[in-house]
Amino acid sequence: MSGKPRRRRRNASADPQGRNVNARQLRNPFPPMNAVSDDEAHDVHATSLRILEELGTRVLLPEARKIFAAAGARVKDDIVFLGRDLVKAALASAPKSFALKGAAPHRDLQMELGTLTFQPGAGSPHATCRVKGRRPGTSQDFRELVKLTQHFDALHLVPTLIEPQDIPVHLRHYDMVGTALTQSDKPFFIYSRGTPQVEDAFEMMRLYRGISEADFAATPHCYTIINTNSPRTLDIPMAQGVIDFARAGQIAIITPFTLMGAMAPITVAGAIALSHAEALAAITLGQLTRHGAPMMYGTFTSNVDMKSGAPAFGTPEHFRASLLAGQMARLIGLPWRSATGSAANINDAQAANETQMGLWGCLMAGATTIVHAAGWLEGGLTVSYEKLICDMEVVNMIADLCTPTEATTDAMGFDAIAEVAPQGHFFATTQTMARYTSEFYEPLNADWSNFGQWTENGALDAHTRATDKWQSILEHPGPAIDPDRYGALTAFVAKRTAEGGAPPIS
Amino acid sequence: MSGKPRRRRRNASADPQGRNVNARQLRNPFPPMNAVSDDEAHDVHATSLRILEELGTRVLLPEARKIFAAAGARVKDDIVFLGRDLVKAALASAPKSFALKGAAPHRDLQMELGTLTFQPGAGSPHATCRVKGRRPGTSQDFRELVKLTQHFDALHLVPTLIEPQDIPVHLRHYDMVGTALTQSDKPFFIYSRGTPQVEDAFEMMRLYRGISEADFAATPHCYTIINTNSPRTLDIPMAQGVIDFARAGQIAIITPFTLMGAMAPITVAGAIALSHAEALAAITLGQLTRHGAPMMYGTFTSNVDMKSGAPAFGTPEHFRASLLAGQMARLIGLPWRSATGSAANINDAQAANETQMGLWGCLMAGATTIVHAAGWLEGGLTVSYEKLICDMEVVNMIADLCTPTEATTDAMGFDAIAEVAPQGHFFATTQTMARYTSEFYEPLNADWSNFGQWTENGALDAHTRATDKWQSILEHPGPAIDPDRYGALTAFVAKRTAEGGAPPIS
Repeated sequence: MSGKPRRRRRNASADPQGRNVNARQLRNPFPPMNAVSDDEAHDVHATSLRILEELGTRVLLPEARKIFAAAGARVKDDIVFLGRDLVKAALASAPKSFALKGAAPHRDLQMELGTLTFQPGAGSPHATCRVKGRRPGTSQDFRELVKLTQHFDALHLVPTLIEPQDIPVHLRHYDMVGTALTQSDKPFFIYSRGTPQVEDAFEMMRLYRGISEADFAATPHCYTIINTNSPRTLDIPMAQGVIDFARAGQIAIITPFTLMGAMAPITVAGAIALSHAEALAAITLGQLTRHGAPMMYGTFTSNVDMKSGAPAFGTPEHFRASLLAGQMARLIGLPWRSATGSAANINDAQAANETQMGLWGCLMAGATTIVHAAGWLEGGLTVSYEKLICDMEVVNMIADLCTPTEATTDAMGFDAIAEVAPQGHFFATTQTMARYTSEFYEPLNADWSNFGQWTENGALDAHTRATDKWQSILEHPGPAIDPDRYGALTAFVAKRTAEGGAPPIS
Repeated sequence: MSGKPRRRRRNASADPQGRNVNARQLRNPFPPMNAVSDDEAHDVHATSLRILEELGTRVLLPEARKIFAAAGARVKDDIVFLGRDLVKAALASAPKSFALKGAAPHRDLQMELGTLTFQPGAGSPHATCRVKGRRPGTSQDFRELVKLTQHFDALHLVPTLIEPQDIPVHLRHYDMVGTALTQSDKPFFIYSRGTPQVEDAFEMMRLYRGISEADFAATPHCYTIINTNSPRTLDIPMAQGVIDFARAGQIAIITPFTLMGAMAPITVAGAIALSHAEALAAITLGQLTRHGAPMMYGTFTSNVDMKSGAPAFGTPEHFRASLLAGQMARLIGLPWRSATGSAANINDAQAANETQMGLWGCLMAGATTIVHAAGWLEGGLTVSYEKLICDMEVVNMIADLCTPTEATTDAMGFDAIAEVAPQGHFFATTQTMARYTSEFYEPLNADWSNFGQWTENGALDAHTRATDKWQSILEHPGPAIDPDRYGALTAFVAKRTAEGGAPPIS
């Protein structure tokens, strides 16, 4: 939001409807906010280094322990004690900026501090919508949610959304990756559930998007998320994921998921000290596996209700944790992911307020990627179609705010003001006539009609109105499908299915 | 949110429930965000000065025109042309910081750039709640909404809330001021609807709060809001209000209400140039009336839907306008008021999202006072009891975020982390046990129970749950009433009523 004049389309008459905001590549315009002083941030970092050095990290994968040991870390049983020199070297070798390629150039992203990307809610066992109610996620739900994700330019990444539980686990990744490839041209997420599944996914991607082995190895085209088992544990599939993605040159986003008071200290600074230590351990593993592997720093730290143990999101503690994690990310210089969320059980005012509050924490923390930005309910147990629409109103407004505010002489409006008598109106000024089709943000789902009109139209709330919105998006055709590539993809899946698929490794 | 350790109560056992956040006096912890460059902000200011000088302002009150003319402004018919020297002198004489006194020292506020105060929704013809539905506001509604405002420490100012239309207009101010005085100990709003009403209100306040004429003249105890009639018009009651409040040493908040594309240019910069010019004209009138009169700068600028003309709030344009107005406020150095809002017709996800989006615009614009922060629906036509509760969840969280994030050695949690084995939990660490009653924000209305529990409890959404909340607050007793002062107040009202009251002047 600098003072540069807003770039507008040259020929307004070619597209008289609406604003021309490029939501596909965004930079965060909001000033970063610190939770603590710079000195205190360094103290948190030092505490994390001490945790790694003195308390150690439990690493369950023997191969990972070998990698650490070979680099000189002390390993005792399954505990790895990581010296600060190893961490320092890893942070020096991890790239500060890298591309993440989509299937089309306009979907390419640059992951670095300062860029801004959004991902809808992910990893939920359930889906819910007003038509079918709340149910265990299915392949069809996943496909529909991928289509909704594809539709919005301000959603940059296609995640797991919901878990399609009607597909057996040894075949599920074929369904999910196949759907992500055919229904979207955006970069997408691959689960780290063992090397066989990961290799399958990489191969499907190369086949369908026509990427050579060399191009794939040279540039990230997909990402995984590595959740540590807090406190201080890196389990087998997660450690394997770090290694597999580092070797393949694809992006691992290291995200300890810590709830203050439960699997992390009750304090914001303590929870981030732990989360930061765990992230540094996994980043070090990735860099030891392959120097220069593209990795993102991540946190997802919120609190629990100390009366019930229930997780909470969009709270002041969640907000502070995002801010402090942002300070850690700036300290180490890596692109980073944060997350918003809501513990609400329905798409209501609580859900909206928690998700937006958490979102502002991420925005002011300078996150490169904001996860669960749309649709996430029940602390992640459900993705709601209607909430996805309601949240996208906010995400679209944020994307709009990434464009500069125009401050040209014409925008300052002296001539327009001179045209209008005191107590007159501006509906017909030269300036208004030149700009009225494109000056303002156009709502996705908001209803700005007055109470009488709104009542006549059925008195529908935002949740109810959102159903029509996602239904009409699902009627859009998906991306064009190249028959040859589609053939190669389905042949691969058929072959692998006949071979028995690839069960997840735990 | 500096790095200073959070001040906690010394003796946690004295009050084992909940956090000890002082929401009564807040400073804004969020970094201010600019909409345009500093040079461009100066250009906007220069455009405003040119509007005042070359185009002039229509001033309908003869006394106000006389004051302007006596100071050397050119007056032609009812248009006042204001030279920049007069504006400059007014900005030099307007105080940059002043107190606003409540009935108790803990309600006293300091109005300046950097402090943060909230006001609930105000000025609405209708009230709505789940019990009685939407109806024209009554005296009882006003009383109840004052009680709700009094209840929340993070609501610092008692505004008009709704218009009690069951009271005749010549007596309405007795009812409103009497209720504000007896049901709240906070500073409150007085309408500028002509000198007789204003003088009545001042006298009621002095009588009930036991303020001498001299103390009242020396220190602000109440405030009014001056809305210009945009574009470029200051009407009779508003000009009179500026003069009356300046003479009395009470606070006039000058707030042009401009909708871009309707009563202001369609551009953010143009709308703020106009709004800024109008604010400067009224501030100049106030300072010419009495040098050093306490005045606040204000804006309320949003956009209309260019298809229907319907006003919209919580939009990117509203957000940008707040940011640019904040730059203008910092340029002139005055404490200032901004506003959020929503055009939604019901307390739903749209209402929550718009109000919170507008709120963040105000927060990042560095507003001293944020108006319509809770309860405002339908672009101000209704105040909702349930929305007031839902919005207060957000305001309370913001108030919580005004306290620093603790970064002591204990908070950084090394010892707590050392106490817990990998994959263990922190529920019983020494650190958790010492802090669990007060570490986290406690929700007002949010329900964090899981889906099963929530369903068993009736599957109530935030809107529905809010009814119980405001009902239980209304059961609280109001502030203690001093019988002598109450007697003086009622005697005054009886006398003035017998004299015929004071009709509003228009």
